[in-house]
Amino acid sequence: MDTLQSTYKGSLALLTDFYEITMAYGFWKNNMHNRRAVYHLFFRNNPFNGGFAVNCGLEYVIDYLNNFHFSDSDLSYLANIKGNDQKPIFDPAFLDYLKNLKFECDIDAIPEGTIVFPKEPLLRVKGPILQCQLIESALLNFINFQTLIATKAARVNIAAKGDPVMEFGLRRAQGIDGALAATRASFIGGCAGTSNVFAGKKFGIPVLGTHAHSWVQAFDDEMAAFEAFANALPNNTTLLVDTYNTPKGIDKAIVVTKKMEAKGYKVSGIRLDSGDLAYLSQLARKKLKEAGLGHLKIVGGNDLDEHLVASLKQQEAEIDSWGIGTRLVTAYDQPALGGVYKLSAIETKKGHWEDRIKLSEQSIKVNIPGVQQVKRFYKQGLMVGDMIYDERTDLSGRVKIIDPADPTRSKVLDKQHLECEDLLKPIFRKGKCCFQKESIYDIKKRTSEQLQLLDKTIKRFINPHSYPVGLEEGLYKRRMELIMKYKEESNQ
Amino acid sequence: MDTLQSTYKGSLALLTDFYEITMAYGFWKNNMHNRRAVYHLFFRNNPFNGGFAVNCGLEYVIDYLNNFHFSDSDLSYLANIKGNDQKPIFDPAFLDYLKNLKFECDIDAIPEGTIVFPKEPLLRVKGPILQCQLIESALLNFINFQTLIATKAARVNIAAKGDPVMEFGLRRAQGIDGALAATRASFIGGCAGTSNVFAGKKFGIPVLGTHAHSWVQAFDDEMAAFEAFANALPNNTTLLVDTYNTPKGIDKAIVVTKKMEAKGYKVSGIRLDSGDLAYLSQLARKKLKEAGLGHLKIVGGNDLDEHLVASLKQQEAEIDSWGIGTRLVTAYDQPALGGVYKLSAIETKKGHWEDRIKLSEQSIKVNIPGVQQVKRFYKQGLMVGDMIYDERTDLSGRVKIIDPADPTRSKVLDKQHLECEDLLKPIFRKGKCCFQKESIYDIKKRTSEQLQLLDKTIKRFINPHSYPVGLEEGLYKRRMELIMKYKEESNQ
Repeated sequence: MDTLQSTYKGSLALLTDFYEITMAYGFWKNNMHNRRAVYHLFFRNNPFNGGFAVNCGLEYVIDYLNNFHFSDSDLSYLANIKGNDQKPIFDPAFLDYLKNLKFECDIDAIPEGTIVFPKEPLLRVKGPILQCQLIESALLNFINFQTLIATKAARVNIAAKGDPVMEFGLRRAQGIDGALAATRASFIGGCAGTSNVFAGKKFGIPVLGTHAHSWVQAFDDEMAAFEAFANALPNNTTLLVDTYNTPKGIDKAIVVTKKMEAKGYKVSGIRLDSGDLAYLSQLARKKLKEAGLGHLKIVGGNDLDEHLVASLKQQEAEIDSWGIGTRLVTAYDQPALGGVYKLSAIETKKGHWEDRIKLSEQSIKVNIPGVQQVKRFYKQGLMVGDMIYDERTDLSGRVKIIDPADPTRSKVLDKQHLECEDLLKPIFRKGKCCFQKESIYDIKKRTSEQLQLLDKTIKRFINPHSYPVGLEEGLYKRRMELIMKYKEESNQ
Repeated sequence: MDTLQSTYKGSLALLTDFYEITMAYGFWKNNMHNRRAVYHLFFRNNPFNGGFAVNCGLEYVIDYLNNFHFSDSDLSYLANIKGNDQKPIFDPAFLDYLKNLKFECDIDAIPEGTIVFPKEPLLRVKGPILQCQLIESALLNFINFQTLIATKAARVNIAAKGDPVMEFGLRRAQGIDGALAATRASFIGGCAGTSNVFAGKKFGIPVLGTHAHSWVQAFDDEMAAFEAFANALPNNTTLLVDTYNTPKGIDKAIVVTKKMEAKGYKVSGIRLDSGDLAYLSQLARKKLKEAGLGHLKIVGGNDLDEHLVASLKQQEAEIDSWGIGTRLVTAYDQPALGGVYKLSAIETKKGHWEDRIKLSEQSIKVNIPGVQQVKRFYKQGLMVGDMIYDERTDLSGRVKIIDPADPTRSKVLDKQHLECEDLLKPIFRKGKCCFQKESIYDIKKRTSEQLQLLDKTIKRFINPHSYPVGLEEGLYKRRMELIMKYKEESNQ
């Protein structure tokens, strides 16, 4: 079942910034609402000072658009919004128009789990300008957050070098959906499971967990607590050993585990949740081995992120699986991806697309005009460069890309000797979804396969190599001409 | 209508970490599930290196508990969770028990909008240990996030010195509820309204907005765009002037505004969204005044937080109202409040409460035992100190408080010459809510009144004065004795 529809009651059409509705009203009042436009959703910088991002959130977009409608209650709410003159802002005929509005745009998007880079359109919307505009805020909300967290999860999993990473963030997440969507994106980014049972049920992904300190505190002593837990869950016991004194806790866990194994049960392991994880995990492994329990798993966690996991791996910490909470689900060191949604072309009265840009003090913030597509090139199993081009361009013989932020950086991609593919796939045509829903397991697999296509210098955390993304030469020139034209006009 | 019930479909009982359910199962298997316990929810450090926090999130807690139940679909999901032995983890009789479980705890909590400090219990749960444990994760999720954002909003509003602050964060928020709950908390913290229409409808708070750059781009020139917008919304127009060239944009806005005023309409003002806001706002004010439009409002925003707003105020930026997005709704510089929920007493077989603590490498992380209450003292209209005490303590004559992190810091509070009140109020008794639902406007008013009770040295952003919070002397001693006893025992 669709995630959004199975989670939220009623319509989500009002999940939008108010200015989308006032602009929709403006388009309608000026009889421009059916004029066709093209908008692209993209971000300007890789998160976490990294070299890449993992695209995520499209399923929420599809759910939202498949059910896009204004309910009667939405419309009566809008009817009561008053302006400076204390009168209703919106003409009742406009609300009638919204009542009957059917989504009819074309959407092309990059599938979830694909590696993506700054400036590339992750999603393109083409259709009546009123409709393109109304959906902006929700699309940004879904894709900004899930792409951010999938990227963070991929980084933590890269640091963990194949060890299972479990997402444990519910209690510190930013609200209910801050947890739910974060769990989805973490799984897509590479995590093995979650502690969040609600998310486990929604997405059909593994739920995992051990016990808290309060379990131990509820008993008169730690040994009694461990025995009670192991007896209740004989084949699913991971004992948290740091409530009072970690080395003594490990010893007690060993005593209880040996008793359980003698009865034929399979105890999972122990968990460390505080203190120096490098030192304590090595101590734990030594003690477990000496007791003939070297096969037990050691779970570690304590405000970790990719940098701390990498450091613990380098110190040869004896941790088999990682519990990562706060710093994963809030993307603690950069809690927002600055994705934007920009108009880049509008249909003229003659039915042609006319390029549009917005100027800015910084040229990197000027958007890319046109009706864009992204072509990715591969060589010997690795990604070698992405070209942003206008889909109406004849590409035969034209394969030079230029970095719009630094035109001295350009690259010629030899189409004859490289494999290539277009990244934006059809998702909606005339408002109907034409994209086969993907399972979360397939998306997760794509992330993992895509990360293999990426040179390791781009995946490193400190000063990663910059992956080549550029504008097709003709589009580059069009953009520069447009900037000069607009600058000249706006100075008049 | 209740926010959670009107927003989410079905039960939220699974909005919990899996270990809460395995522990519940452990308590049930060991026939301890009805043993009574006391848990406290508190945080250890003020967010943002600040001097205070604004308590928020209780309404979500009440909604959640008023409707706490496991649905059939929740139970069949749990029935299918398998362990290491590939068999279902949970005994069907336990799932039957959950099916019939009725929430019956007592809850006391500090009302929303109250100023709170580290170590103080924001919420206390007393009841059957299984039930206290099951609700941990959801309570932490609600209170951690909303307290974080209400505090951030209060800080931004302090910096804005009475100017209206609008929350514009939907597009960068952490998911749908990352936006919805953030809007609620921002309003409670002092914001005047939101751009998020969904939240505006849910909470009955003002929605606000202007237009985007795309509006201007959709027209052949900026002047035509301004005229079209002003004509569509003649009494609700704020013109965004920085799509191409800000000074020229201001000039065009002036032309259009004068035309509208000549027709008798009330244009609201202009909006600046990029560039140097100090310089441009002063330029805009000068131009507006010269045109006889000094009364127009200037709205400013561009990745602002409390520090940038304070700096712009100090530079005498001519901004009348502030649009704050990303850095408010994600609490960008500290996106999680580390609130925890700790067992601090358990009923003995004889029916007495027995203190419980958890040890830690850092003594500040050791929790406070007992059944706690907070007494706040006031002098001449200002808060002067908070005492955490065990509610079973006879307080006559005992009013010395000691900082558990630094016992050299203590303070004697003269009860005879100070006003005082207990902060934790009854919210649930035997599972029934006994707290009158508060309107969001009343809660917002409380925040504002409470901030007036706080000395300004505590409200400053850099190195704020530390507000005195301590343990009642007897509780301090009990905690120290308990730490020594547990350390001794755990070394055996």
